[in-house]
Amino acid sequence: MKTKEDLEIIARYQKEIRLLSQTSGLLQWDQRTYMPKKAIKSRAEQTALLSSLIHEKFTSDEFFNAISRLKNKNLDEESTLIVRKLYKEISKSKKLPKEFIEELSKTSSIANKAWEEARERKDFSIFLPHLKKLIDLKRKQAKLIELPGHIYNSLLDDFEEGMTVEKLTPVFQELKTNLISIIKKIKSSRDYNELKIKILGGKFPKELQMELAKDVAKAIGLEEDYSRIDFSEHPFSIKLGTNDGRITTNIRTDPLFCFGATMHESGHTLYELGIPEEYEYNIMGDAPSYGLHESQSRFWENMIGLSKPFWKYYFPKFKERFKIKEKFNEWYKEVNFVTPGLIRIEADEIHYCLHIILRFELEKALIEGSIQAESLPKLWNEKMKEFFGVEPKNDKDGVMQDIHWSEGCFGYFPSYAIGTIYAAQIYEALKKDIPDMEKDIEKGDYKKIKSWLKQKIHKHGAKFLAEDIIKEVCGEGLNPKVFIDYLNKKYLEMYNLK
Amino acid sequence: MKTKEDLEIIARYQKEIRLLSQTSGLLQWDQRTYMPKKAIKSRAEQTALLSSLIHEKFTSDEFFNAISRLKNKNLDEESTLIVRKLYKEISKSKKLPKEFIEELSKTSSIANKAWEEARERKDFSIFLPHLKKLIDLKRKQAKLIELPGHIYNSLLDDFEEGMTVEKLTPVFQELKTNLISIIKKIKSSRDYNELKIKILGGKFPKELQMELAKDVAKAIGLEEDYSRIDFSEHPFSIKLGTNDGRITTNIRTDPLFCFGATMHESGHTLYELGIPEEYEYNIMGDAPSYGLHESQSRFWENMIGLSKPFWKYYFPKFKERFKIKEKFNEWYKEVNFVTPGLIRIEADEIHYCLHIILRFELEKALIEGSIQAESLPKLWNEKMKEFFGVEPKNDKDGVMQDIHWSEGCFGYFPSYAIGTIYAAQIYEALKKDIPDMEKDIEKGDYKKIKSWLKQKIHKHGAKFLAEDIIKEVCGEGLNPKVFIDYLNKKYLEMYNLK
Repeated sequence: MKTKEDLEIIARYQKEIRLLSQTSGLLQWDQRTYMPKKAIKSRAEQTALLSSLIHEKFTSDEFFNAISRLKNKNLDEESTLIVRKLYKEISKSKKLPKEFIEELSKTSSIANKAWEEARERKDFSIFLPHLKKLIDLKRKQAKLIELPGHIYNSLLDDFEEGMTVEKLTPVFQELKTNLISIIKKIKSSRDYNELKIKILGGKFPKELQMELAKDVAKAIGLEEDYSRIDFSEHPFSIKLGTNDGRITTNIRTDPLFCFGATMHESGHTLYELGIPEEYEYNIMGDAPSYGLHESQSRFWENMIGLSKPFWKYYFPKFKERFKIKEKFNEWYKEVNFVTPGLIRIEADEIHYCLHIILRFELEKALIEGSIQAESLPKLWNEKMKEFFGVEPKNDKDGVMQDIHWSEGCFGYFPSYAIGTIYAAQIYEALKKDIPDMEKDIEKGDYKKIKSWLKQKIHKHGAKFLAEDIIKEVCGEGLNPKVFIDYLNKKYLEMYNLK
Repeated sequence: MKTKEDLEIIARYQKEIRLLSQTSGLLQWDQRTYMPKKAIKSRAEQTALLSSLIHEKFTSDEFFNAISRLKNKNLDEESTLIVRKLYKEISKSKKLPKEFIEELSKTSSIANKAWEEARERKDFSIFLPHLKKLIDLKRKQAKLIELPGHIYNSLLDDFEEGMTVEKLTPVFQELKTNLISIIKKIKSSRDYNELKIKILGGKFPKELQMELAKDVAKAIGLEEDYSRIDFSEHPFSIKLGTNDGRITTNIRTDPLFCFGATMHESGHTLYELGIPEEYEYNIMGDAPSYGLHESQSRFWENMIGLSKPFWKYYFPKFKERFKIKEKFNEWYKEVNFVTPGLIRIEADEIHYCLHIILRFELEKALIEGSIQAESLPKLWNEKMKEFFGVEPKNDKDGVMQDIHWSEGCFGYFPSYAIGTIYAAQIYEALKKDIPDMEKDIEKGDYKKIKSWLKQKIHKHGAKFLAEDIIKEVCGEGLNPKVFIDYLNKKYLEMYNLK
């Protein structure tokens, strides 16, 4: 077979897989936004068929044979990278037998239902047998994949290619120690102890919340012609095709929920929309890791959306819309209020990564077999006490709060913390390149920032490893110190601890 | 191969084809409701891929071989019908070579764009060469399909299985003569000539229009749990899965547009939702013809929605919402105002079928080759003059008003008139079975009607030919006389011509 023909084969397969994934994405988007409730059974069948068609194409012999033949050919740089990446991913997926995939999928689906019931009844024992089965399967999966080093690496790699337990452990150790120390300092300050939440306990009409959310999404770059905002129970973002980035949001009492979630999801979508069109239908048309994807959402939600210059622009709008009487400084402190909570997704930017490290430590131990699922509730609560100084009253708000494990997602949690660290590193690099950036933010003008992010990060798609992009952009790889310095500076100043 | 295995093969293929069609339906629904404008290119690629997957499955050898083997086996009644129908449809589609299908699809797509441009510029000559090419292809298609009788039968059969030019010509002849005669009578009456449109020229706030449209859709049977109403430029209905019937509507100045369109589309969706779940994933899970489908929308839109008992219930609501001062009789006459218009989709229930007969006569002549596309504008205008007494000022409002021909849809128009006639026949049968039906309608209570329609029509799916269902339910096949009698009774009474 000629090289040209093989390149055509792999282009066709990649394009078809991508188009089917986008279509499957629409099935999901619709299910979570507009689908009538009773259509769920039918939708599950449609989704399952699409998944199996995608899997069929991804693992087809014609595709893999063409890739294998191309692997040793002399190709242009882009094709070489594509072929190498395809070969790696498909070889990896070929290590898992079809029966294993089916068992894992079936077990996850049952475990997820058990988790829902267990949460409702606040009874971990309902979830336990399913969780144990899932952990066994994930250990089996890790052994089949068999990457070098710690057994957990083989799972982590699905979300964070190239990242390892060996690299991550000291990073998280340093982060943990410092986060706990910053929190301790804050709590010791007089300003902190005198602070009362006054404004965010008020009433915030839904329409006005949405108006502000739409305003900020547009400012970030979500134009109507190629994106949209809808509602769903849990906010999410999804790209359904070229020029088709969709986010969802939701309204809670606290107006920062809708506003922050909108910024977060807009950050994800801006990334997706920033990936070049020529990668649209091949394996390069993705982020290289969940962590780098998360860096973009966290960048907008936290680094921008919780910053002083940002609120200098947006506070007057909030003040006017919601008739807030308090002054800027009070608002700014409330927006950044630091408090140990039980729930990860409600955490402030200092406590957030502690939630992640707790989960990482536990799931790593579960996969290596040094702890058993039976002791999870006890260990969870002990760690909560150790890291946060608080303990959940029940397992629903404790070990069962996240959906991830019930879906067989082990190895995903680190990406949230990695993304948070990357976001701080990216912000620092941006400040160096655009010294007057914060003045732009004060004016609600993100043009330069958006164009920088697109140029430095989005435009690469999945061409390089996430950490290599960060090295290129920030001069070094994953470095928790940058995030710690940022927190220290921000919060010690806020509480007059300098 | 054993019978059981063959039955499994054909069940699997039918289910996969159905699931892919539903998924493709979602792509369309989204494109017409929520999709960001600039996503169109991507969406076209997704839709094309789904179409080719469906086609691949439908024409696969494995599928057809299993059907062929089963054709001569002794099967239960249901399976026999399914196998027979599948064999017929696939054999028919096998008569069209792949290259022909591709050429037709490409030509239609280009012709459709040319039609849009030609409409915009009101210049038929832009559309003409594409239309000529399409007509050539459709003639070729008819020759390849080669059903008995008139050449047009081979196209008509795609929409109205079993219907023929030979059957239809006298039906439409009788209908035309009588419609023209009723219109003449109405126009000669003093009441008609004194009638002024007063109410429907008023202002009708959008929210109130939607409130009433939602109210009537719910009354007809579109419950939130398994259906939804959205907006699109042209109203349509689509079933996206079990318990997933969707309609769209739109708001115009005349409040009857939104209200009537909602009733029309609700009628289609009620039919789809009424087809038994056991037919969901096989070839029985459809209406047997476009005409029978249209009978359900026309039934609700016209037979119910333009009737006196219906407005006895709904007029007080309209009166209150829109602060209408006029009396019931004036409203009722306005709702049923008869006037010769140029545009099919704006026609009253008497003129509507004349629009259809005009199109049928022209497209039949085009396909048999007795007229040429060049003379269409002239012939169109002559027929308009003859049937309606009016002539369009330009071809946009004349020969180019409908999208159908530009998409290669020849043979579709008759279904609209067939559905209209069926609707009148169904109404008569209903009155016999439920003598106090009109009292229920006056109370806004459609329970008995809905259950009758489901029992007599919907529950069969595509098990029988459309006309055979009508024969069973109404005691005779397609009979324009019932529709003519209905119009005579209604309008002669309305204008005191009795």
